[in-house]
Amino acid sequence: MIVPRLIERKRDGERLEPREIRELVLAYADGTVPDYQMAALLMAVYFRGLDRDEMNALMDAMLESGKRLDFSGLPMPRIDKHSTGGVGDKTSLILAPLIASLGVAVPMMSGRGLGHTGGTLDKLESIAGFRTALSLDEAEKQVARIGCAMLSQTDEIVPADRSIYALRDATATVEVIPLIAASIMSKKIAESLTGLVLDIKRGSGSFLPKLDDELELAKAMIDLGARHGCPVVALLTAMDRPLGHACGNALEVAEAIEVLKGAGPPDLIEVTLALGAEMLVLASLATTVEGAHVLMRDAISSGRALLKFEEIVSAQGGDEAVARDPSRLPQAPHQSSFSAKREGVVQSVDPRAIGYGVIALGGGRRNMEEEEDPSVGFVITAKPGFHVTKGQTLATIHARSRADLDVGRSTLEHAIEIGDSALHPLPLVSHRVTGRGVERLA
Amino acid sequence: MIVPRLIERKRDGERLEPREIRELVLAYADGTVPDYQMAALLMAVYFRGLDRDEMNALMDAMLESGKRLDFSGLPMPRIDKHSTGGVGDKTSLILAPLIASLGVAVPMMSGRGLGHTGGTLDKLESIAGFRTALSLDEAEKQVARIGCAMLSQTDEIVPADRSIYALRDATATVEVIPLIAASIMSKKIAESLTGLVLDIKRGSGSFLPKLDDELELAKAMIDLGARHGCPVVALLTAMDRPLGHACGNALEVAEAIEVLKGAGPPDLIEVTLALGAEMLVLASLATTVEGAHVLMRDAISSGRALLKFEEIVSAQGGDEAVARDPSRLPQAPHQSSFSAKREGVVQSVDPRAIGYGVIALGGGRRNMEEEEDPSVGFVITAKPGFHVTKGQTLATIHARSRADLDVGRSTLEHAIEIGDSALHPLPLVSHRVTGRGVERLA
Repeated sequence: MIVPRLIERKRDGERLEPREIRELVLAYADGTVPDYQMAALLMAVYFRGLDRDEMNALMDAMLESGKRLDFSGLPMPRIDKHSTGGVGDKTSLILAPLIASLGVAVPMMSGRGLGHTGGTLDKLESIAGFRTALSLDEAEKQVARIGCAMLSQTDEIVPADRSIYALRDATATVEVIPLIAASIMSKKIAESLTGLVLDIKRGSGSFLPKLDDELELAKAMIDLGARHGCPVVALLTAMDRPLGHACGNALEVAEAIEVLKGAGPPDLIEVTLALGAEMLVLASLATTVEGAHVLMRDAISSGRALLKFEEIVSAQGGDEAVARDPSRLPQAPHQSSFSAKREGVVQSVDPRAIGYGVIALGGGRRNMEEEEDPSVGFVITAKPGFHVTKGQTLATIHARSRADLDVGRSTLEHAIEIGDSALHPLPLVSHRVTGRGVERLA
Repeated sequence: MIVPRLIERKRDGERLEPREIRELVLAYADGTVPDYQMAALLMAVYFRGLDRDEMNALMDAMLESGKRLDFSGLPMPRIDKHSTGGVGDKTSLILAPLIASLGVAVPMMSGRGLGHTGGTLDKLESIAGFRTALSLDEAEKQVARIGCAMLSQTDEIVPADRSIYALRDATATVEVIPLIAASIMSKKIAESLTGLVLDIKRGSGSFLPKLDDELELAKAMIDLGARHGCPVVALLTAMDRPLGHACGNALEVAEAIEVLKGAGPPDLIEVTLALGAEMLVLASLATTVEGAHVLMRDAISSGRALLKFEEIVSAQGGDEAVARDPSRLPQAPHQSSFSAKREGVVQSVDPRAIGYGVIALGGGRRNMEEEEDPSVGFVITAKPGFHVTKGQTLATIHARSRADLDVGRSTLEHAIEIGDSALHPLPLVSHRVTGRGVERLA
């Protein structure tokens, strides 16, 4: 294998052979091919793309570079949910216990915040003691015992993906559909699932703001899953505004607990239950979405979902008492409400501005070395389309200092726009994509 | 400076500011920016290009990363010649002593073989003891004393270019006109020249086989020179066949010595004297090309050019006796002639095939670690357009073993095509480009 020649061929728009991609990815994973050659290749792929065969070969090689979770002794359906990343999206925190409480195994491997978006691992770690760095063995045993484990990608799981992902982040080669699809799906296939639900975010706060791209990504991931016997259902959901009210790690955990208790913001509930229903149908625990909703509402009202949450937190070393008393979560010392400067209709709540605002408050990372403060963030009750009066509270800022309250205020002033026009934000759940095609829901 | 953001902007076709390019190149030179980010940026530049301001900033930053030769005490004109790389091109070996013998200072910094092409340094080092790794101080003193030094790019001279060049070679980002132009010109400007002659190779054996690209490269380098007060004249010369007969390091030195003695292949003499004439006119030692030819023919016939060659070899620790007795150069133990299989007209002598053939014989490097055998190669007397009879000797193979003779034979069988059509190879010297425009010569 002459690597510059492979780069040159991709650069010139030629197709690489599956065996060439396999050899290259495995050589990169073992350190034989240096970062700089992979970086040049990734940029060539940005311009020239990968066809289906190339994408398949990439994912297969990434899988081959590591181990998979082994559930050979587990007779239950194993379903996970994965999102392409958004702001205020705490659906994983709700769905993992909710769906596990209904008898589905949920081996959930999540990520950290990226760019303006939050990460499930960061949110979980705002619970005192919560440990996400489980070994494969620990994760397998915990799933067998309580039906769920919420873990980070270990060194053993698709290490080639880990390295390529970090490289893409550093070389402006993130937004490439086949690379995104192979990266996500390699991790999900390594979870040995029997089904997967994808939450593909739409709108200004998503990584792929164009609908065509989102549908293409959905189809690519559905194809990758099908090749490995893992049926995939994708829902396209709105990320033109934050999901729910809370944005910030501990605040989002508290809001997830609210939903598990039967309360919480309606938009968050709607998206969560839509995703959960697909998980239950894939698990064959329900035959219809309506049936699945009945099951989920029962799991919540009976307290079983919250109990499963406590069980997971306890199993992973966390302070399980937060489930009953969310005030045990880290609290920011300074809080201040933010009010409407004028009467009108909320035109937009910009999720990117809010996401970067949380980082500015110290609640996210600008690089992998930075420490996060889990307590800070925003609780934004205003939603696009709401009519507000002058002086009405739109949000609360949670900050480490008075100076940071000003930072938060300035973020909200830029992020929340009030005007006079009526508004039609994106439907919360707009499309459903399966191996059979695209279904428009709203 | 957020490097992924700079990469992203170039990737998206935006222009980088000169100060951004400067900061990036200097940070890369000092190791702050890693290879993989520079590799991604170079591939983005491959697709998006660099405009004149960006190219200027790149060259200025590369120059700023190192030192320059200092000839402040030297009143003579200082002229160098640089080629974009070819097969059988030993004109530098002839021009350096020839032009220096006429009273022009020639500080000549050369390179190693790249791809299928040979390198002046490798050729010089086939002379026992010849040392090309001169310090800046040594080079300055030698030029002041004998009018010429033939050296490799030191660590002190444009180190940013050295690193970027090595990276381009490993990442398939070599063939980018502004990168080629800035790389060559940064080294030439660092030589503190009063004039530069460029030999831009045309045809299948050159790195840029399209005429438009060659003219664009010429103009780019002329502009870069002009910005630094260094007038540049470019000649476009034929590289659709090897230049002269000898291809292989020691064989080429021997052929260069032949020319310095007044003999040698006519095509080599024609190209060498055309380039030399431009050097002498730039140095104001001649007012016309014809006048320059008279001076050069006199320097050769009087033996002054050969004497200067001996002086240079001796000054740099080499066995100067080779000038009188080229049999002192390394000799391959096995030699065999190669004959025409049929009568006809030589249709082509493929320079790439010949260049790679020399490497296959052990006479070039496949990577920077490989040792070269300077003795091996080909002496090809057949030229495109020649009428040959069956059994006529077309070439001689010089090899390390009988098995390698077969390798050489197979190379020549593929490289030399005999057919029936009359043929019009590229004119040896076809265009002359200066700051005033393009002049067609043939």
